[in-house]
Amino acid sequence: MSGSILGDMFKISTWGESHGKALGVVIDGCPAGLEISAADIQRDLDRRKPGQSPFATPRKEGDKVEILSGIFEGKTTGTPISLIIFNKNQKSKDYSALKDIYRPAQSDLSYDLKYGFRDHRGSGRASGRETAARAAAGAVAKKVLAALDVKILAYTASIGPVKADPKNFNEDYIMDNFLYMPDSDAVKKAEDYLNGLIEKNNSSGGTIECIVKNIPSGLGDPVFDKCDALLARAVMSIGAVKGVEIGSGFDAAEMTGYEHNDFYRYQAGEINKLTNNAGGTLGGITEGSDILLKAAVKPTPSIEKTQQAVNKSGENIELSIKGRHDPVIVPRAVVVVEAMAALTLVDLLLKNMSSRMEYLKRVY
Amino acid sequence: MSGSILGDMFKISTWGESHGKALGVVIDGCPAGLEISAADIQRDLDRRKPGQSPFATPRKEGDKVEILSGIFEGKTTGTPISLIIFNKNQKSKDYSALKDIYRPAQSDLSYDLKYGFRDHRGSGRASGRETAARAAAGAVAKKVLAALDVKILAYTASIGPVKADPKNFNEDYIMDNFLYMPDSDAVKKAEDYLNGLIEKNNSSGGTIECIVKNIPSGLGDPVFDKCDALLARAVMSIGAVKGVEIGSGFDAAEMTGYEHNDFYRYQAGEINKLTNNAGGTLGGITEGSDILLKAAVKPTPSIEKTQQAVNKSGENIELSIKGRHDPVIVPRAVVVVEAMAALTLVDLLLKNMSSRMEYLKRVY
Amino acid sequence: MSGSILGDMFKISTWGESHGKALGVVIDGCPAGLEISAADIQRDLDRRKPGQSPFATPRKEGDKVEILSGIFEGKTTGTPISLIIFNKNQKSKDYSALKDIYRPAQSDLSYDLKYGFRDHRGSGRASGRETAARAAAGAVAKKVLAALDVKILAYTASIGPVKADPKNFNEDYIMDNFLYMPDSDAVKKAEDYLNGLIEKNNSSGGTIECIVKNIPSGLGDPVFDKCDALLARAVMSIGAVKGVEIGSGFDAAEMTGYEHNDFYRYQAGEINKLTNNAGGTLGGITEGSDILLKAAVKPTPSIEKTQQAVNKSGENIELSIKGRHDPVIVPRAVVVVEAMAALTLVDLLLKNMSSRMEYLKRVY
Amino acid sequence: MSGSILGDMFKISTWGESHGKALGVVIDGCPAGLEISAADIQRDLDRRKPGQSPFATPRKEGDKVEILSGIFEGKTTGTPISLIIFNKNQKSKDYSALKDIYRPAQSDLSYDLKYGFRDHRGSGRASGRETAARAAAGAVAKKVLAALDVKILAYTASIGPVKADPKNFNEDYIMDNFLYMPDSDAVKKAEDYLNGLIEKNNSSGGTIECIVKNIPSGLGDPVFDKCDALLARAVMSIGAVKGVEIGSGFDAAEMTGYEHNDFYRYQAGEINKLTNNAGGTLGGITEGSDILLKAAVKPTPSIEKTQQAVNKSGENIELSIKGRHDPVIVPRAVVVVEAMAALTLVDLLLKNMSSRMEYLKRVY
Repeated sequence: MSGSILGDMFKISTWGESHGKALGVVIDGCPAGLEISAADIQRDLDRRKPGQSPFATPRKEGDKVEILSGIFEGKTTGTPISLIIFNKNQKSKDYSALKDIYRPAQSDLSYDLKYGFRDHRGSGRASGRETAARAAAGAVAKKVLAALDVKILAYTASIGPVKADPKNFNEDYIMDNFLYMPDSDAVKKAEDYLNGLIEKNNSSGGTIECIVKNIPSGLGDPVFDKCDALLARAVMSIGAVKGVEIGSGFDAAEMTGYEHNDFYRYQAGEINKLTNNAGGTLGGITEGSDILLKAAVKPTPSIEKTQQAVNKSGENIELSIKGRHDPVIVPRAVVVVEAMAALTLVDLLLKNMSSRMEYLKRVY
Repeated sequence: MSGSILGDMFKISTWGESHGKALGVVIDGCPAGLEISAADIQRDLDRRKPGQSPFATPRKEGDKVEILSGIFEGKTTGTPISLIIFNKNQKSKDYSALKDIYRPAQSDLSYDLKYGFRDHRGSGRASGRETAARAAAGAVAKKVLAALDVKILAYTASIGPVKADPKNFNEDYIMDNFLYMPDSDAVKKAEDYLNGLIEKNNSSGGTIECIVKNIPSGLGDPVFDKCDALLARAVMSIGAVKGVEIGSGFDAAEMTGYEHNDFYRYQAGEINKLTNNAGGTLGGITEGSDILLKAAVKPTPSIEKTQQAVNKSGENIELSIKGRHDPVIVPRAVVVVEAMAALTLVDLLLKNMSSRMEYLKRVY
Repeated sequence: MSGSILGDMFKISTWGESHGKALGVVIDGCPAGLEISAADIQRDLDRRKPGQSPFATPRKEGDKVEILSGIFEGKTTGTPISLIIFNKNQKSKDYSALKDIYRPAQSDLSYDLKYGFRDHRGSGRASGRETAARAAAGAVAKKVLAALDVKILAYTASIGPVKADPKNFNEDYIMDNFLYMPDSDAVKKAEDYLNGLIEKNNSSGGTIECIVKNIPSGLGDPVFDKCDALLARAVMSIGAVKGVEIGSGFDAAEMTGYEHNDFYRYQAGEINKLTNNAGGTLGGITEGSDILLKAAVKPTPSIEKTQQAVNKSGENIELSIKGRHDPVIVPRAVVVVEAMAALTLVDLLLKNMSSRMEYLKRVY
Repeated sequence: MSGSILGDMFKISTWGESHGKALGVVIDGCPAGLEISAADIQRDLDRRKPGQSPFATPRKEGDKVEILSGIFEGKTTGTPISLIIFNKNQKSKDYSALKDIYRPAQSDLSYDLKYGFRDHRGSGRASGRETAARAAAGAVAKKVLAALDVKILAYTASIGPVKADPKNFNEDYIMDNFLYMPDSDAVKKAEDYLNGLIEKNNSSGGTIECIVKNIPSGLGDPVFDKCDALLARAVMSIGAVKGVEIGSGFDAAEMTGYEHNDFYRYQAGEINKLTNNAGGTLGGITEGSDILLKAAVKPTPSIEKTQQAVNKSGENIELSIKGRHDPVIVPRAVVVVEAMAALTLVDLLLKNMSSRMEYLKRVY
């Protein structure tokens, strides 16, 4: 059944394997009249593309996006936007050795159990490479948000035990370091930590935070389509994500109602919340304050350090995974979290347009 | 736009306000031939029904479910199952005072911003009472799981700072205490903690864990419809939930790949994972090991302790919320988490039936 | 799997069997702020309710609708609207004799083949009684259309060989005759024709036409979601409908391009089509001219005249169906065709709101 | 909003403009283990490709399909299948003259009204060329049907006034003539008719019939997802189709119940219908007899014969459309009707797998 399509109104349909000819995405439902160029999309693809950092796989991929449809004279036409990225640097032989092996913490076993066999080359569809299509679609969604002055920003909040200190938060610095962290002191510590793991052929996890500013109120629907719920689904659908928090997240469990409730005061004639434990929604619906989201990313499963694995022949084996792997995938996942949040919010923006008869009368 | 419908194949459509005539759910897509009775559903409704514990609102509701369609001679017919629960004990006057007030951490403000006005009686559609319909639908989903010998179990893992100790885990005890905790020592501490808060007109948060045993492999799809992602969405859609974890959750962020990877060994001819940090899925697809899910529940927002709030007339006010509120909603949310997990898994079970040509040939 | 839910944004979920306790519909996605009362809905229910005409089953059903949720102080709240109609006059014993018989042109055989068994009482879910829920939901959709000054009108165009003559078209007369025909001469002929069939224990088919005036342009989407396609699906989903035409319909097959093309002329500064063979859409998208739809309705399958049938025991039998049946269902289906068209158009109206960036800026 | 995605379980997402770089389709939800090659798909593409008949546009397009993902070692993997067809022979200049003109019976006006502007080159997304992607996806669906021994066959039943005579029906002959008609006498008459129209710079409509043999019972769901309804939607979504009939279609309107009802007899221990006015479904659900579908196709709107049109500057103009057009599109639409029926039936096949608990137990 279908698992690669997301969205109700702003629908994206992604496709492609790590070592196939190409991968891509079709966006169906983007409003007409949005100005966008391949360069707008390329910018985000470059943020996750491999081979650019000492802390990422050296696999060289240009990840050049081509627009095949849906854009005419620089503007979206309202018809499907097809984006394609050709794979350049597949080294399938790297993987042939793994053909019959079930690697720990990878999808080898579950894909075989589900489908009866699998494309084993670079994990096929289960490869993190699939997220390039998400980043491309996300770049289009972010153009829609930008047209409404919504600002979305994700960054690395921690790598292993090393946490960015909110007191040192420097937004401009985020794009200036390989780890996309907002705190230069934390970056130094994280680099040392990662270099130590690289020596030991090991890998690290981390966390990513995403903030959305100036979001219109009213996004999200009662019950199942709460903004929080759809953000959680979108972000948890990233392969390496093991947990998602909105606002106070798990801290809320240890707080009292009096501590957790965000009090209101009128300030300059506007209603303001004195805190933002809610993280931007009430009853699952935005009310204008910042959306705060946090994701936990597991360590890269592919490590050279010897692990206990099994093969299809029923043998227990000792496995050391050679090849080109990321000691940490958190930095490359930052733009993907941003994309997933943007895609979710644009879908909600479009759906919310029909929430009131008054809005119908503005359009018709 | 639509927000009260969940599922692709096993679709539930819930409706009803806290202080309306009734609330209910329509289930469309339940396979024919499932044996089920009103008593099967009532059992779960009774687990969340108010007025049965010193730690829950005294509002008295029988929460008696009636089956209006879709079941004939004790078995599902394959057509929509309509379940209804009439409201008995609405005290709308309790709420009239709150008509023009925006209560902290409630949906009052966001609903007004979204829809232009709201049914203010008991939070209307945003009331936790909405979850009765989820529990009813979940009971049907659990009968489907039971027919495949899948076992699902949720319980209270912590209340405020008081955590159940895994060493004291006693499954049988869960149903024997008002808090649905598996650890009798923790229950005593939690009761003391809650009684202290009640005296101070305050409330508590907590966490809920859910374990699914004997789940078939193959559930969940690549990319966006990963089992983890859909579970996260379903559980995060519960009003008070602020965070969701699968398996290791946020702990994964501080672990190394070598620590986090679940190693494999053949045992008695079967592939076993030596640990379960993955929490039951690989690449978002189940492989037969237990699904482990954890949710963070915020403290009850309605407290009598005085808070800073605002009203529609533009005034800052001091608010003390009288009425019938739960000092903690975690115990009543346990069955709802179980329901949301069951509904998600049944939908995936049905969708996965078409994942292989081989399965088509078994059916046709 | 799911078959009783329709719509992407204006979603209706219907339920109920002919001889169950009740039937109803949940509407999820109706914009907030629509003024509506039970009387608005009752009006359409009364148009299809049985027992009011010499040409309809004498089964007496009040078909009184109750609003259970989603409407507060006379206006929709944006949350699900639950409508229920209790069955009053089930005579299940009428049907017990048919329990093991497969009636010609009924769903008995296909339901048994699909589900393994069936609720045989009055055809259960397959009963035309199911359309009461459609009429109720359609009445709500028509209020949305009316708020935008869209006018929708369906009527009986022919009964058996008797056709209404366009030259005698009298809109006001439609509601003044049991057959809902716009031509009083045709009504007399049709009544004679039907009385003749009643004597012979036989039944008649007919056709229904639906016209939609003042529809906004832009409704419908390229490729699969063309306005025509979705109207055809909605109308063909009515049990007795065997064919659907838009505009010229099957006549188009025998026309030349020059004859069929609707030429344009500017008139009073507006673009006008000199003909309307297209029936209101171009490329599946409305451009402001009237939508013209036609449906073919088969004769009532339940007739007393003796037919060749079979039973489950493997016997060929001669079947004469007693009980309360309509000699013709066309007149009662008129309001259902109107409802299905209205539901489809409202869904498209809501979806079309997000077709342009310019519209987003009008709302946000 | 989204209009280029079809299906619930077997989802296809098409994209591409007539004069863009390429067009294609992504199929998400094809079961794993289906053997398929590019040649299987090419066969159907060749049936609709231009430039092969005196009665089709001479535009030369190889319409070579490339498989970009989802197939590994000759079998589907269960992940998205991306198919692409590069455009080779765009002559955009042919169309620049039409940039500001609204052609009769084309989508020019409705696209401008909906989106505010349009890609005018060869009708952009509204071009019949879009159906190449449908034919490609349909070829995959037909492989699924073939694996279950379902046989689907479409052909030209009439061109203008020339009808194929059922008495002369010769299945083998269908693929042996440019018009895909089953009756050689009718072909001669139709060729004469078309040559006459070509001289007059005019075009013709026609009808297409589709028969599905050996379809499993149980396909289609009650109420809105009836097999008939979904077939009607799929076929009516083809740009030129103005009407759809199932079984007796519009003839049913003039028949009596006794004439229309398909009587049953046991023959060789099996239940048989003595006629097939129902056209393969009862209550919208298949019961094993042939599905009979008929579509009305309008004449090609682009004709050289002078028509009355308008332009954006508000002028009435006389329009003669030069360029490369089909005097009749019926023959090229035959494979598209077949594709739409196949796609609909495969989606229903997959959905029906979850209709009984008994089937779950066969798979799990």
